[in-house]
Amino acid sequence: MDGSLTVESREIPTPAPDEVLVRVAAVGVCGSDTHYLRHGRIGDHVVTGPIVLGHEASGRVVAVGSAVGGDRIGERVSIEPQTPDPTSRESRRGDYNLCPSMRFYGTPPIDGALAEFVTIGASFAHPVPEHVSDEAAALMEPLSVAIASIRKAGVGMGESILITGAGPIGLLCAQVARAAGLTRIIVVEPGVQRRSAALRFGATEVAVSVADSDAGQTAVDAFVDASGAPPAVLDGISAVRPGGRVVLVGMGADTMELPVSLIQNRELVLTGVFRYANTWPTAIELVATGKVDLDDLVTSHHGIADVRAGLDADRIPSSIKAVVHPGIDTVEPAARPSS
Amino acid sequence: MDGSLTVESREIPTPAPDEVLVRVAAVGVCGSDTHYLRHGRIGDHVVTGPIVLGHEASGRVVAVGSAVGGDRIGERVSIEPQTPDPTSRESRRGDYNLCPSMRFYGTPPIDGALAEFVTIGASFAHPVPEHVSDEAAALMEPLSVAIASIRKAGVGMGESILITGAGPIGLLCAQVARAAGLTRIIVVEPGVQRRSAALRFGATEVAVSVADSDAGQTAVDAFVDASGAPPAVLDGISAVRPGGRVVLVGMGADTMELPVSLIQNRELVLTGVFRYANTWPTAIELVATGKVDLDDLVTSHHGIADVRAGLDADRIPSSIKAVVHPGIDTVEPAARPSS
Amino acid sequence: MDGSLTVESREIPTPAPDEVLVRVAAVGVCGSDTHYLRHGRIGDHVVTGPIVLGHEASGRVVAVGSAVGGDRIGERVSIEPQTPDPTSRESRRGDYNLCPSMRFYGTPPIDGALAEFVTIGASFAHPVPEHVSDEAAALMEPLSVAIASIRKAGVGMGESILITGAGPIGLLCAQVARAAGLTRIIVVEPGVQRRSAALRFGATEVAVSVADSDAGQTAVDAFVDASGAPPAVLDGISAVRPGGRVVLVGMGADTMELPVSLIQNRELVLTGVFRYANTWPTAIELVATGKVDLDDLVTSHHGIADVRAGLDADRIPSSIKAVVHPGIDTVEPAARPSS
Amino acid sequence: MDGSLTVESREIPTPAPDEVLVRVAAVGVCGSDTHYLRHGRIGDHVVTGPIVLGHEASGRVVAVGSAVGGDRIGERVSIEPQTPDPTSRESRRGDYNLCPSMRFYGTPPIDGALAEFVTIGASFAHPVPEHVSDEAAALMEPLSVAIASIRKAGVGMGESILITGAGPIGLLCAQVARAAGLTRIIVVEPGVQRRSAALRFGATEVAVSVADSDAGQTAVDAFVDASGAPPAVLDGISAVRPGGRVVLVGMGADTMELPVSLIQNRELVLTGVFRYANTWPTAIELVATGKVDLDDLVTSHHGIADVRAGLDADRIPSSIKAVVHPGIDTVEPAARPSS
Repeated sequence: MDGSLTVESREIPTPAPDEVLVRVAAVGVCGSDTHYLRHGRIGDHVVTGPIVLGHEASGRVVAVGSAVGGDRIGERVSIEPQTPDPTSRESRRGDYNLCPSMRFYGTPPIDGALAEFVTIGASFAHPVPEHVSDEAAALMEPLSVAIASIRKAGVGMGESILITGAGPIGLLCAQVARAAGLTRIIVVEPGVQRRSAALRFGATEVAVSVADSDAGQTAVDAFVDASGAPPAVLDGISAVRPGGRVVLVGMGADTMELPVSLIQNRELVLTGVFRYANTWPTAIELVATGKVDLDDLVTSHHGIADVRAGLDADRIPSSIKAVVHPGIDTVEPAARPSS
Repeated sequence: MDGSLTVESREIPTPAPDEVLVRVAAVGVCGSDTHYLRHGRIGDHVVTGPIVLGHEASGRVVAVGSAVGGDRIGERVSIEPQTPDPTSRESRRGDYNLCPSMRFYGTPPIDGALAEFVTIGASFAHPVPEHVSDEAAALMEPLSVAIASIRKAGVGMGESILITGAGPIGLLCAQVARAAGLTRIIVVEPGVQRRSAALRFGATEVAVSVADSDAGQTAVDAFVDASGAPPAVLDGISAVRPGGRVVLVGMGADTMELPVSLIQNRELVLTGVFRYANTWPTAIELVATGKVDLDDLVTSHHGIADVRAGLDADRIPSSIKAVVHPGIDTVEPAARPSS
Repeated sequence: MDGSLTVESREIPTPAPDEVLVRVAAVGVCGSDTHYLRHGRIGDHVVTGPIVLGHEASGRVVAVGSAVGGDRIGERVSIEPQTPDPTSRESRRGDYNLCPSMRFYGTPPIDGALAEFVTIGASFAHPVPEHVSDEAAALMEPLSVAIASIRKAGVGMGESILITGAGPIGLLCAQVARAAGLTRIIVVEPGVQRRSAALRFGATEVAVSVADSDAGQTAVDAFVDASGAPPAVLDGISAVRPGGRVVLVGMGADTMELPVSLIQNRELVLTGVFRYANTWPTAIELVATGKVDLDDLVTSHHGIADVRAGLDADRIPSSIKAVVHPGIDTVEPAARPSS
Repeated sequence: MDGSLTVESREIPTPAPDEVLVRVAAVGVCGSDTHYLRHGRIGDHVVTGPIVLGHEASGRVVAVGSAVGGDRIGERVSIEPQTPDPTSRESRRGDYNLCPSMRFYGTPPIDGALAEFVTIGASFAHPVPEHVSDEAAALMEPLSVAIASIRKAGVGMGESILITGAGPIGLLCAQVARAAGLTRIIVVEPGVQRRSAALRFGATEVAVSVADSDAGQTAVDAFVDASGAPPAVLDGISAVRPGGRVVLVGMGADTMELPVSLIQNRELVLTGVFRYANTWPTAIELVATGKVDLDDLVTSHHGIADVRAGLDADRIPSSIKAVVHPGIDTVEPAARPSS
């Protein structure tokens, strides 16, 4: 039951007083975009009318709201695609990603970034240095998920982690783990091309299953699941040392049979990741200094005429991340666009 | 398949150089003692030969090992019934309860405290003030479980907690929550006598189910399950605010179907409690200053001739905690023994 | 060089869209108000023109900005007297008290609460239950300082604290320490009336000096200075156990000779308190449930005609907290006003 | 008042039951060794009789105590030169470096490692991989100080740090900060050779003073002083962002005039480092994986006949770390010994 995808003309939106208007340069395609397109819902979030997808975006500020300084016009920015209520208890505490009044790009009924122009809160449009590409600026968003995941994993220099699933989030978790000085980064992934990518992006070891990996022998300090697959989650939990942490990032079934007595006996700490808060400054630093490489994750570029191919790129095994350039009609295969 | 219970004569044990010999005054009966007696195992811990049960104990030091000062003889002590390896990585980090080489009272094959004399590491025999009763000194052990639970719940003054299950651990969690300044302490428990006890021991509200309680309306900061019952765990998890914590203390099935997407979307932090570390000083302070009442938990006293009744006291609905006095043959119902 | 104090008529302010207009019922007098009046500055904050003092305030919502629900009109509220920029990095992290763009009541050049009407961000006007008095609602502000202090002290149930200085903040720290379950609360204060008050408000021991107190014998888990006096700070630091914390709340000299090698050898953690963040919900809970008593701190009431006496009440040794009622001309000594 | 240095023959020590006997391969010279030699004391630690200096040591296990497995004989180890009491409250909590009964190599009256044979607790003799040199194995000790410092600084990937002083500890802090993914590592040091070394070992910027550095313009997340010089400490503190941390590692005067009001207004968190706990596994991982380079810190090698030159090497500006090989009489300048 695939949804239909149309390109239509709309008015250029007007930024609210504290917002900026951004001409979009690049939008990464996320599995959730594709899931909405194909299934019309993710959990309780149901698409009930036309919606603009896309939430991994970069661009250039072209206009500002009345409360924003005009000197921001012309800035190249990475968009943090959320608008929390700053007065909620969660926002006040610093957990603004958990704000119950959140408005988030491409999540029904809020429109997203697969458009030529978008508006966003001025402080959520983060300036990026010139040497960071539009694609990398867009992919600060999945990188933020990975940063949030590794933070929650509570690990740092000289420690070990198991990551299951080597899609874009798993690969970024490996990169972030490497950037944070972890010295044992085990990535478990059935796909051979993805295992090979994992080795390129920070894994110190790859395996097709936890049991086959060194984590089956020597416990790890933390485990991040980026697969959403119950068997991977179960195997991964059993590989964590007493007192270690389990972070569930990959989305799968609503419920899962978990080894409660193991969690108790080892006092494991299990949690999940729901987007991110306070990650963009870290993300930009890591990319600007070359500690994380986002450009090499991009496996295809698409113009707006070609957007369906971008949303379906996950069906190609070698694809890691497709990027759409909404301001361009068709991207020549050989050409790499720049804003 | 009830195991048989016998009383037998043994040699008085000799304390190792860093140990003390304690004449036991009181031993609280724990559900795990009864479970070993009736089922011969708890999870992977299997009773394969005769074992002395009991791990909630107090008494008086009557001899010391060669490396312990003789001035300890005569001290009234509460026994922390564990002997971790101080050189394990877990012990070095301060998580000595997670030490893989742990030797623990009454856990196969280590003998426990239902005896006239026991030995324990000198630093695990914690002196108690004179005005703390033998029974209270014994019950520092379950109190320690409750302290560990509330610590892991991460809550403090002015915050709220949901506790499911009002057995001894649930009741002690309520008391500890009150001592820590929590102002909304909801205890959910099907048994009417236990609900009534909960109100006496710190609950600000009791209910037969989470849905019936105020926690069904307004989320709590943390949830501690002391029931081990899957429906209670599920209901409890759904009552926790975004970013709040879930602590599983009650033991039940090895695995449980948990609401993973809820844990992710709210970034709940779920963990378990496996005994305790660094709790005795806190426990003794709370009891010595009257902030926690342990004596009122004791619903029956038993001599060694009557120990079976103590171990089966859980079958009496009004029973909360049975205490055995191994040095006494029979306790007169009206009499309260003292060491 | 005392500044002059005048009462003048002004326009009733208009709330901004996200603000409420509050008719002020009670304003606590703080040492900083008096200091501005007498010295014209506190550190870098210099009074350069007329300013309305006062930042401990309560009242009733009488009008709302365009973005605030009209159902808030009529609410009795405690005012959190700060307006941070919600988009600053500090606010985003949850440390909004450290926001560099902060606008704070009664801090030059921002007007404060010693007025009949004030405006404040709607989410900083915290509703209080009916049974909480206007005075208590006003004193949630200094209580928030104490809550922030005890949080930073990192102590909880069964632990110990040394507090030097038994002015309003020291006394509130003692109360909060008691509410949080600390069992050893030593207050050091030279004034006999304040020592006596400390015993009433939670101290388990009082002394005229640290050396005279039990903290001179047995180290404490944490030390909060609410005196600003260098000798007290020095003595207090030396009383803290290895790994314990030192919190400097009292304001005094810009610099102080501190025992650096002691801090190093014991790995003490020293910090300061600058106002508060996320304390009001806790403060209101503690007061509404009777765990903290604010009314008994109030030693005098003043109408607006009598405001100078309120600001000078610190010169009376028995005075703890003077409260001004801006809407009342003169308070009869025998009468206790209510809103 | 230089102390005299003699080489003498002693009996080979016998390991206690839980100890190992190590034939020493390499001993790094620390400023504290030299200070004891020249001044006879450090703070309260006074040399009152002959003492063997040295606490940065590696070697090979040649005998074991009765409670240690014989399979450890032959192991190459890095020595963690401390023997805490595992039953102290500090050890139990995981802060064993703060144990009041600590026995530490080369600290009066405990003998240290400048000897052919030493004993140490078996669990404090940490095995190192074959590809880690003896010198690197010895220098795990100062590396541990740096690891403890960066941990206390509370910073990680993408964050910034200011380090004052580029002696061995400052240089190692820079290396550890780099390993932990910090992206802005500013080292301030007056000596030109040390500044140059800092750039080699991880600094992203060096300067002769804080004011001259970028930290004078843009605040840093944390500041570590490895100089002990009051002006550096003062300048450094003023460069830290609100809520950031200050870690004092360098030892200097007993007291120091600190900017208390700045600490308060920014809620800075200031602490010190006293040795280390739980650092060796991290240190060995970082060195074994090449994330930290210890060999390049070594600027001179000395045999036992030449030990005085090693202890005085700090007088040579280009010297960073002198290493003594107690089992060798004289080290040929061109030769690099190996065990």
